[in-house]
Amino acid sequence: MKALFIDPVNRTPVVVLKDMHSSKIVPIWIGETEAFSIATELQGQKFARPLSHDLMKSIMEAVGAKLEKVVINDLRDNVYIATVYIKTAAGEIRELDARPSDSIALALRMHSPIYIADHVFDKSAIEPPEDEEEKEKFTEFVDKELRLSEFRRYIDDKGQGGS
Amino acid sequence: MKALFIDPVNRTPVVVLKDMHSSKIVPIWIGETEAFSIATELQGQKFARPLSHDLMKSIMEAVGAKLEKVVINDLRDNVYIATVYIKTAAGEIRELDARPSDSIALALRMHSPIYIADHVFDKSAIEPPEDEEEKEKFTEFVDKELRLSEFRRYIDDKGQGGS
Repeated sequence: MKALFIDPVNRTPVVVLKDMHSSKIVPIWIGETEAFSIATELQGQKFARPLSHDLMKSIMEAVGAKLEKVVINDLRDNVYIATVYIKTAAGEIRELDARPSDSIALALRMHSPIYIADHVFDKSAIEPPEDEEEKEKFTEFVDKELRLSEFRRYIDDKGQGGS
Repeated sequence: MKALFIDPVNRTPVVVLKDMHSSKIVPIWIGETEAFSIATELQGQKFARPLSHDLMKSIMEAVGAKLEKVVINDLRDNVYIATVYIKTAAGEIRELDARPSDSIALALRMHSPIYIADHVFDKSAIEPPEDEEEKEKFTEFVDKELRLSEFRRYIDDKGQGGS
């Protein structure tokens, strides 16, 4: 389960990966363009022109490659490391180094699973607060849906988009 | 021949494609992230983590695909349209719809040629000014090299980057 927000403190987009077996979450701060790409896919929005990850998907489909899965498998110097597992037309698996943002944007488009390694999860997952009121706020934050129009306005203000 | 600048009027990055047989140029305004990706490749900069177009290149190499060429082949409602020509491992050519920014960022990485269709060039190429002083300024603008450090500072100010 995933969600995407603007961190209110530093106005940076953050992807939230939720544990399926607990209330723990892993927040991953990402770039605006990648966040926009993830947001549009989560919301089922289609633009006139393909975004970078749309082209990435087109390339994979054109060569008969599949995306087996993406795994966020390391955390070094506060930077998350991901691996994308590509299945070639000949059926061979290739492991490629990637950022979580690109991995997630691509996985959403190709309907591929997104995993986080246990040791990364244990190191970076956040416990919800003990206090009931705080807990409620936290859950609300995690479950709150991204409003794409707001996000887009935010991006537009910053002069994003273009050819 | 290409160059990359920040348009001083609206602070938007612009890629400049130069005609090899005249002094005419075609300016294409693009997004910041794509401009950053083009700039780093033009300057031979390598980052610890792969950018979107680095991953795109990795995917193509992993599946044995080649980038034959990219062609900016249309201009609709002031938006440039490009086609990327992918050669599969089996030797088949696939034509994919793309934005010029992604096409150029990928072509630079894969050392593939970048073309602009004659009818697009004729419609959008700019003549250098007649006046000598203006002409000099114009040439200086076109030939001026991007300073990546400045560009990066500009991007950092806007909160770009991330995982």
